[in-house]
Amino acid sequence: MTESKGDIVRNVPFLEKEGTMRTLIRNGTVVTSVNEYEADIYIEDGIIKEIGKNISRDAEEIIHAEGKLIFPGGVDEHVHYGSFGGRLFETTDAAAAGGTTTIVDFAPQEKGVPLIDAIKKQAAKAQGTACVDFAFHGIIMDPKESVFEEIAQLPEVGVSTLKLFMAYKGTDFYSDDESILKAMMKARECGVTMMVHAENADIINVLQKKYLAEGHTEPVYHYYSRPPVAEEEATKRAIALARTADCPLYVVHVSVKEAMEAIREAYTQGYPVFGETCTHYLTLTTEYLAKPDFEGAKYVCAPPLRPQKHVDALWEAVQKGWLQAVGSDHCALEGGFETKKRGLGDFTKIPNGCPGVQDRLAMLWTEGVCKGRITRQKFIELFATMPAKVVGLYPQKGEIAAGSDADLVIFDPDYEGVIRNEDSLHGIDYSPFEGFPVKGRPEQVYLRGKKIAENGRFIGPKGEGKWQKCRPYAMCYDYFSLN
Amino acid sequence: MTESKGDIVRNVPFLEKEGTMRTLIRNGTVVTSVNEYEADIYIEDGIIKEIGKNISRDAEEIIHAEGKLIFPGGVDEHVHYGSFGGRLFETTDAAAAGGTTTIVDFAPQEKGVPLIDAIKKQAAKAQGTACVDFAFHGIIMDPKESVFEEIAQLPEVGVSTLKLFMAYKGTDFYSDDESILKAMMKARECGVTMMVHAENADIINVLQKKYLAEGHTEPVYHYYSRPPVAEEEATKRAIALARTADCPLYVVHVSVKEAMEAIREAYTQGYPVFGETCTHYLTLTTEYLAKPDFEGAKYVCAPPLRPQKHVDALWEAVQKGWLQAVGSDHCALEGGFETKKRGLGDFTKIPNGCPGVQDRLAMLWTEGVCKGRITRQKFIELFATMPAKVVGLYPQKGEIAAGSDADLVIFDPDYEGVIRNEDSLHGIDYSPFEGFPVKGRPEQVYLRGKKIAENGRFIGPKGEGKWQKCRPYAMCYDYFSLN
Amino acid sequence: MTESKGDIVRNVPFLEKEGTMRTLIRNGTVVTSVNEYEADIYIEDGIIKEIGKNISRDAEEIIHAEGKLIFPGGVDEHVHYGSFGGRLFETTDAAAAGGTTTIVDFAPQEKGVPLIDAIKKQAAKAQGTACVDFAFHGIIMDPKESVFEEIAQLPEVGVSTLKLFMAYKGTDFYSDDESILKAMMKARECGVTMMVHAENADIINVLQKKYLAEGHTEPVYHYYSRPPVAEEEATKRAIALARTADCPLYVVHVSVKEAMEAIREAYTQGYPVFGETCTHYLTLTTEYLAKPDFEGAKYVCAPPLRPQKHVDALWEAVQKGWLQAVGSDHCALEGGFETKKRGLGDFTKIPNGCPGVQDRLAMLWTEGVCKGRITRQKFIELFATMPAKVVGLYPQKGEIAAGSDADLVIFDPDYEGVIRNEDSLHGIDYSPFEGFPVKGRPEQVYLRGKKIAENGRFIGPKGEGKWQKCRPYAMCYDYFSLN
Amino acid sequence: MTESKGDIVRNVPFLEKEGTMRTLIRNGTVVTSVNEYEADIYIEDGIIKEIGKNISRDAEEIIHAEGKLIFPGGVDEHVHYGSFGGRLFETTDAAAAGGTTTIVDFAPQEKGVPLIDAIKKQAAKAQGTACVDFAFHGIIMDPKESVFEEIAQLPEVGVSTLKLFMAYKGTDFYSDDESILKAMMKARECGVTMMVHAENADIINVLQKKYLAEGHTEPVYHYYSRPPVAEEEATKRAIALARTADCPLYVVHVSVKEAMEAIREAYTQGYPVFGETCTHYLTLTTEYLAKPDFEGAKYVCAPPLRPQKHVDALWEAVQKGWLQAVGSDHCALEGGFETKKRGLGDFTKIPNGCPGVQDRLAMLWTEGVCKGRITRQKFIELFATMPAKVVGLYPQKGEIAAGSDADLVIFDPDYEGVIRNEDSLHGIDYSPFEGFPVKGRPEQVYLRGKKIAENGRFIGPKGEGKWQKCRPYAMCYDYFSLN
Repeated sequence: MTESKGDIVRNVPFLEKEGTMRTLIRNGTVVTSVNEYEADIYIEDGIIKEIGKNISRDAEEIIHAEGKLIFPGGVDEHVHYGSFGGRLFETTDAAAAGGTTTIVDFAPQEKGVPLIDAIKKQAAKAQGTACVDFAFHGIIMDPKESVFEEIAQLPEVGVSTLKLFMAYKGTDFYSDDESILKAMMKARECGVTMMVHAENADIINVLQKKYLAEGHTEPVYHYYSRPPVAEEEATKRAIALARTADCPLYVVHVSVKEAMEAIREAYTQGYPVFGETCTHYLTLTTEYLAKPDFEGAKYVCAPPLRPQKHVDALWEAVQKGWLQAVGSDHCALEGGFETKKRGLGDFTKIPNGCPGVQDRLAMLWTEGVCKGRITRQKFIELFATMPAKVVGLYPQKGEIAAGSDADLVIFDPDYEGVIRNEDSLHGIDYSPFEGFPVKGRPEQVYLRGKKIAENGRFIGPKGEGKWQKCRPYAMCYDYFSLN
Repeated sequence: MTESKGDIVRNVPFLEKEGTMRTLIRNGTVVTSVNEYEADIYIEDGIIKEIGKNISRDAEEIIHAEGKLIFPGGVDEHVHYGSFGGRLFETTDAAAAGGTTTIVDFAPQEKGVPLIDAIKKQAAKAQGTACVDFAFHGIIMDPKESVFEEIAQLPEVGVSTLKLFMAYKGTDFYSDDESILKAMMKARECGVTMMVHAENADIINVLQKKYLAEGHTEPVYHYYSRPPVAEEEATKRAIALARTADCPLYVVHVSVKEAMEAIREAYTQGYPVFGETCTHYLTLTTEYLAKPDFEGAKYVCAPPLRPQKHVDALWEAVQKGWLQAVGSDHCALEGGFETKKRGLGDFTKIPNGCPGVQDRLAMLWTEGVCKGRITRQKFIELFATMPAKVVGLYPQKGEIAAGSDADLVIFDPDYEGVIRNEDSLHGIDYSPFEGFPVKGRPEQVYLRGKKIAENGRFIGPKGEGKWQKCRPYAMCYDYFSLN
Repeated sequence: MTESKGDIVRNVPFLEKEGTMRTLIRNGTVVTSVNEYEADIYIEDGIIKEIGKNISRDAEEIIHAEGKLIFPGGVDEHVHYGSFGGRLFETTDAAAAGGTTTIVDFAPQEKGVPLIDAIKKQAAKAQGTACVDFAFHGIIMDPKESVFEEIAQLPEVGVSTLKLFMAYKGTDFYSDDESILKAMMKARECGVTMMVHAENADIINVLQKKYLAEGHTEPVYHYYSRPPVAEEEATKRAIALARTADCPLYVVHVSVKEAMEAIREAYTQGYPVFGETCTHYLTLTTEYLAKPDFEGAKYVCAPPLRPQKHVDALWEAVQKGWLQAVGSDHCALEGGFETKKRGLGDFTKIPNGCPGVQDRLAMLWTEGVCKGRITRQKFIELFATMPAKVVGLYPQKGEIAAGSDADLVIFDPDYEGVIRNEDSLHGIDYSPFEGFPVKGRPEQVYLRGKKIAENGRFIGPKGEGKWQKCRPYAMCYDYFSLN
Repeated sequence: MTESKGDIVRNVPFLEKEGTMRTLIRNGTVVTSVNEYEADIYIEDGIIKEIGKNISRDAEEIIHAEGKLIFPGGVDEHVHYGSFGGRLFETTDAAAAGGTTTIVDFAPQEKGVPLIDAIKKQAAKAQGTACVDFAFHGIIMDPKESVFEEIAQLPEVGVSTLKLFMAYKGTDFYSDDESILKAMMKARECGVTMMVHAENADIINVLQKKYLAEGHTEPVYHYYSRPPVAEEEATKRAIALARTADCPLYVVHVSVKEAMEAIREAYTQGYPVFGETCTHYLTLTTEYLAKPDFEGAKYVCAPPLRPQKHVDALWEAVQKGWLQAVGSDHCALEGGFETKKRGLGDFTKIPNGCPGVQDRLAMLWTEGVCKGRITRQKFIELFATMPAKVVGLYPQKGEIAAGSDADLVIFDPDYEGVIRNEDSLHGIDYSPFEGFPVKGRPEQVYLRGKKIAENGRFIGPKGEGKWQKCRPYAMCYDYFSLN
C-alpha cells in the first residue's frame, strides 16, 4: 500500500490521497497519558475514526499489533532547522524515524523584517521538504515598539508562542528586561505564550572573559562560564517580569535544579509559570563537556550540560509535573564536528547546538521508563501530549482519541539496540548519545494515517509534512483563566 | 427498553441481561481527565466497545447526545452506609441520581471479628440492595498483632485500602501511633494503601472538656474544639509514620490549608503522600456550624467545616493536583436531624455525618467549573478518574475508553436548578447544600450500559449494584515504584 | 561646663580639649543590645573609662541619671548630605538633637574622578561643619575597569563599604549586572562590603512610561511604577551576583516583604547576605504618597513607601534579626517642598528624598518599643550597635563599654510630645513624621564625652564632628570567615 | 587566699566571707556575646563592681591577665545529678574545672509527691555539696490535674522551667499529648517555660521490638531504633501543642537537622519556639555508637548520636541563632561503664547518659571557635549568656557587666592538650571525648569572686554552690510579649 514516491509526486496534495486510505491496527496496547488498554484503532482520511474492541471495518491496510504498544506520535516542541546554523528540513526524516511526527521550529526574525514575514519565510523552507508536520514559534530579534505590536498578528498565522533570549548580550538575540516586559504585556493581550531562554548574559560575559584571561580555552569552560546561578537568576527574573505583565511564562530548556525549583515555587504561589527540559539535560552531564581532545565540543549547547545533581532533580521534576515537557533542542550544525572546531583555542567560539530529534523517544523510554524514573503514562505526556497542549495543537496532535490525527507509533518494547550515529538520519557526523543502549523502538510510524518510518528507517516520501496552525490561549493560559 | 422492575426481579442476574444490550450514544462531547472531543460511544455487554466518529453499529437503544457532555460515571471513594449511624445501601439511589455509579464504602471491624469477615459482612448488606457498584475500604478497630497480620489477606477479597483513625481516643476507632505504624509496615508488604483520619485526639479531648467546662455547648464549638492545628499535627504525624514504615499514605478528608501543605511538602520531598478532600470542605464554611437554633448541628462532621481561607486553599489544591480526589464522606444519619439532637446541650454528643453523595457532581461542577476554580478536565479527574485509580478500579471505572465499564453520565450543561432536600434521595430530612443553585445536571446515568437514573430520578431496579474488587499496588504505589 | 562656642572656636581641635574632660554619669540604667543594668559611667578624654557601681572618681561634670536610660549614641549608616540634592553637613545638628552621634554618608563619584578623590571631597565638606562624627560609603558612578581597581584603595582611606545602584538606568547612577559583578569580585578581595540599591530599572522605566501615557501624573504613581516586584527581583538578582562573586552583600533600604524574605532565604541557605531597612518603611505607608494636593510628593523617596503588609513584615524582620539595622536615608532636599514641585504634572520628575535623621530614635522607640514590636535591646542593636558593626566602627561606636567612645544618650523615658517640623533642625520646611506622637526623648546627648544636645536642641559648637575611619572585613565578613 | 576547707567548714556561709573579698583582674580581654575589649575588672562582695581602663582600686587579690581572655562563667542548663542514675553533686567540681559556674539540674517528681517537694528534695541534695551554683527545672512524672495546678507555684520556689518527656512510654517519665497540652496551658498562665524531650515513643517502641526480634542487640541499634524521624515528628507535635496552648516552647537536646528546621520554621512563622543542642551532638557521630566490643554503649544517650549531616546542620544552627544554647546533658552514671553493661545482649537495657559537664567549654571552643564554625561572641552566647537568659538568671549569670555575679573564667588561649578521663573530675571511668585535642583552657575559674579552679583542678572547698532562683517570664516569653 505504501508506494515509493519520487520528487515529482510532491505537488500532489497529500490531503486528497488521504481520502482513500483506511487502516486498521488490531490489538495493540494503546498507551495514553492517563490510560493503557488493548484496542483496535481504525483510521480513515488520516484521522483516528474509531477505537474499540474488535472493530469490524474494512481497511486497505490491517496491522497486527499484538504485544506492541501504540503511542501518539511525538511532538518535539523545540527544534532548530535552517537557523542557528542548523541543517534544513530535509533532515526531519530523523524525527520520523525516531517516532516524532510533529516538530515545532523557531522562526528567528532578521532585523527590520516583520515577525510574520520571518515566520512565513521559515515556513516556506519547510513546505515541501519537511518529513513530518511542523509548526513555529516566533523569535523577536529586533525588539522595538513596532515589533511588539506585531505580536497580535501571530495567532492569525497559526503561531501562538514567542521566544526571547536573556542571554547573548551584544547580539541580535539579546532582549533586555524592558523588551521582555513589553513583549509580555502585548502577548498577554492576545493569548500568545511567552518563552524565554533564561541565562544571565552579564554573568556569562564576565566569566567568559575571566576564564579566557586565565588561559582556559577548553570546551568544559563553556560550563564554568555559564554556571547554574546564571540560569537560576535569569529564570527568577523572567518570572518577576511575567508577574509584572500578568502574563503566563514557559521557560524552555530548563537545565538546573534551582531554576526548576523557582518555576515550581512560582506555580505554587499562584503564577502560571511552566517549563520544559530537554533530552540531554536528563541523560548527559558536564563530564561529557570535559572529554579530552576537543571531543567535549560536540556537547556544547546552551544552557550547558550540568552535573548529576541537576540531572536527578530534572527527572524528579518531569515525573512530578514540575516541568511539563521534554524537547530535543535539536540543532544539527551544518558541517558537524568540523563546524565546532571554530572554537578550538577559544571555547566561546564553539557554535552551540547538538542533534537529538531522533533519539528523544529512545532516551526517554530507556533512561526514563525502563529505569523506573517515569511511568509509561508520564512518558506519553512528556513526549507528545503536553508539548501539543503547550503550543495549542492538542488534541489534533499528541493524543490517541477519535478525531485526532492518526499520528501513531507502533512500538516494539522488546527490541534491544545501541544508538549509533551511522544509523542516524540527522545528517551530521556525530551523535551526543553515541553508544547508549536502548530498549524498544518505533517499529512503525504513521503520520496522518500514512506509514512514514519503519524500524529506524524513513520510508515515506520526503516533504509531505504540513504546517500546523497553533491556537492561542493554549495550555499555559488554561490555568490563567482560573481565578 | 428500560422497564420498571419490582423486587422480585432482583434475583435475575444483571450480568446475563447485559449480554443482550447494545446501546449507541451519538454525538455527545466526551469529556475525560485530559481531553474533550465529539464522538459516538457504542456499548455492548455493559462495556464501552467503541468510541468513534459515525460509528455504524446496530443497537437496541440509540441516544442522541448533541450538545450534551459525556462524563465517566462518578466514583465516590468515601461513603458510609450502614455504619457510623448511616442509612443502608437502599439509599444509594441518591448516588445514581447524582451521577455517581461506583461508591467505595468503609467496612468497620467489630472487636474480635476478623477484618475479612467485617468486609464480607458489609458486602452482604450491599449485595442485592445497592443501586450502584460498590467496593470497600477496611477499617481496623481492634488493633493487635493478629489483626495486622490479616492485612495481607485484604487484596484476596478485593480490598486494597485500609483506614485508621487518629481521632476518637477512648473509642474502638482510635489507633495510637504504634498501631498505625505496625499496620503501615504490613500494608507496605502487600500493596495495601493506608488511609488515615488525621486529627489529634488529645487536643480535641482537652478542648472539648475546656469548652464544656466554660459552658459552651453549641454546635459551633465542634469547630473550636477541633481546630485546624489538630488536623495539621496529625497529618504531619501520619506522614512521619508513613516515612518510618516506608509506606505510601493517603490522607482522607483533608480540610485545612496547613494539612494540605504538609502533604504537598512531603510529596515534594519525595515521599508518596497523597490526599483527598470532600465536597463540603470546598463549599461550606464554619459559618454554617454557627447557625442559630441548633441548625448548625446539621453540619457537624469531622473534621469540621473550616473558615473561608481553607476553602480557598483547597480549591487551589485540587486544581493543581496537590490533593488527588474529592469524596463526599456521605453519611445520612438514620433519623436525620432528630438524631443530631442527641447533642442538644452538649456539642460533643452530636453524631458526626452529613449526606452528600447525590450532590458531589452538582457542587463540583457549579462551584468549581462554572466559577472558574477548576477546569472541566480537572473535574473529571477529581470526580471519577483519580478516585478509581486510588482504590485500584481504574480503568474499569473512572474512564471513558474502549474496554472500560459503560458507566456514563449524559450531562445537560444548560439545566439550571436549585438543590432541595425534597428532591434528594438520600433518605433523611435535610441537605447541607439546601438552596444552592446548580448549573447543569445528569440527564441520564448509565451503570454498565444500563440506564439507572434520569434527570435526578432513579429509574433502575434497586439492588443491581455489584461488588467491585480493587487491585492492590494502586496509584499511591505507582510513584513508590519509581526510584 | 558646656560653654557656648562661636564659629571661631572651630579650628581649635576638639581632641585636645577632650583631654581635660572628666564626666561621671551616676545611676542611669545602661541599655545595651543584650543587657540592661544600673551603673555609673566614668568618662575621660572622650572615652568611656569605667562602668561600675558607685564609682569613686573625680569629675568636672557629674550627671545624675536616676530613672533615665543610657543608650549608646546612634549610628545612622544611611544619610545623604550635600549630594543627591541634600542640604549640607551644617544641618547635622538635627542628628545630634535626635540622639545620633555618628552618621555614615555617601560619597558619590563624578564621572572621570577617582573614587578616593570623591570620598576626600565629600569628607572636606563635612570637616569643620559636621556636628556629629561621620564616615563614608563609596559610590561608583563611572563603572569601568580602572574604577573597579580603585576599590582596593578604599580601606586605606577608612572606607569599607561601597554602594551601587540597580535603578536609574540612563543616569550615571546605574550599574548593570556586569559592573556589579566586577565590583563585587574586587570588593571581595579587599574586605569591602558591597551595598546595593535594589530596584529593577527596566520595570520602572516601562511602568513610568505606561502610567504617564495613561495620564497618571500624581505622586502616588511613584509607587505604582516602582512596584514591590521590582525590588524583589533586583534583590534576588543582587544575591545571585554576590553568590557568583562569592562576596558578602548588604542590601540597603529594604522596603518589601518579599525582598526581605529573599535575604532571609539566602542567609538560611548559607550565603552572607544582609539588609537594612529605614525608619519610614517601618512607620509610613503608601497612603501618604496618595495625599491630595501634591502633598504626597513630600513622601517621595526610592524605594517608595509600601502598603501596610510590608510594614508589618519589616517590623517582624528587624525584631527577629532578618534585617540588621535601621537607617534614616536622610536627604533633606535643598529647597524643601518647593523643590519637590519640579514634579508637578509628572511624578517621575519629583526629586527623591525625605529628611529623617532627627526622628530615627523617636520613631523606633515610640512605634517600636512602646508598641511592643521590638525589645529595648533590639532597639539598641538596630539604632547603634549593628550599624557600627556593619560599617566597621564597632566597638568604638555603637556600644557602651570600657574603651568605647563616650557617645551617649541620656534618655528620659517619661517625656511625651509630638513631632513638629518647627522643632526640627534638618533645615527644610516639612517633616514626613509631622504630628506623630512620641514617648521619651534624648535629654542629653554626648559626643566623645562632650554634651552637644539637650532636650531636642543642639547646644554644642557646630563642626566638631570627626571623620571616623571604618575597618574592612567588617560584620558581613564575619560570617564569611566561618567554615 | 584560697585555703583548704574540710567538711566542717561547710556550714560557714559562703556569703559572709564574700563580703571581705576584693579582687582586681588587670588587662584581660573581656569577651562577651557582642563585644571584645581590653579592660580591668574589679570585684567586691562576689559581684563585678567595675569594668574599666586602669581601675585604681585596692584589692586583696590582683590578677594579671595580659594575653588572657575573660569569659563569663559557663551556665550549663542541662545536667543530671542524683537522678536518672547520675552521680551526686559532689562531682560538680568537674563543672568548675571546666569553666562552668552555674548548673541547672532537673528535679524529677516521684509519683504522688508534689512538684515543689520534688524540687526541694533535689535542692537539699545539692545544698552543701555542689561546687558551683545551681538551679532547677521541674519535671512532671505524675501527670494529673492536681499536678498541673502546682505549676503555678514553681516561680515561688525559683523554678521557671518545666520539662516533660514525649519518649519512654510505659514509664513514669512519659507524658501523652493531653498531659503536655494541659501543662502548657497552665505554664503559659504563670510564665513558666515549657521544655520537652521530643522523641516519638511509639516509633521507638515498635522499632526496638523489631530489631530485637531480628536479633540485633548491639549498641548501634540504639540509633536505628530512635531514627531522626522520631525526633522530627515529636518536635513538630510539641510545636503544634505549644501553638494550641499559645505557650512558648523550648526543645532540649535537639539532635537532628529536621527537628532544628522545624523549630526555625515555627519561629519564622511567628511562634515563640526555641531550642538547645548539646556538646556531643556537635562533636560525636553515630560512628561512636558503632564501636565494637560494646564500647558503643559508652555513647548511649537519648536522643542518640547522629550521622555527620546532622552535626554539620547543628553547627550552622547554633552560629546562626536557630538554636539558642548548648548544654551538656551531663549524666555520669553511677558505676560508669559497668553500669552500661546491663544492656549487654539487649541495647534497650543500656542506661542512657554520658558525662560532659567538664568538657563543654573545651569542645565548643576547640571544635567550634578554633575550627571556624562559630565566632568567639557566639561561643559566649551559647556557653553562658543565652542559657542564663533562657532559665531567667540573666544578667546575674552569663554576663560580664557591672552588677553581675563575679563568675569568671580566665582563659589561656595558647594552652594545648588532650582530653583524658584520668584528668576528669566527673567521677566515672570513661569520657566520651577521650583523646580529643583541645586548644586553650580555663586557667582560673571564679565563682562569685572566689577562685575555685585552676588549670583543670578544683581548688575551692566543695559545697559552696548556692541555689539560684530563676525568674519566670524569661527569654522565651520576651518574644511572646511582642505582638
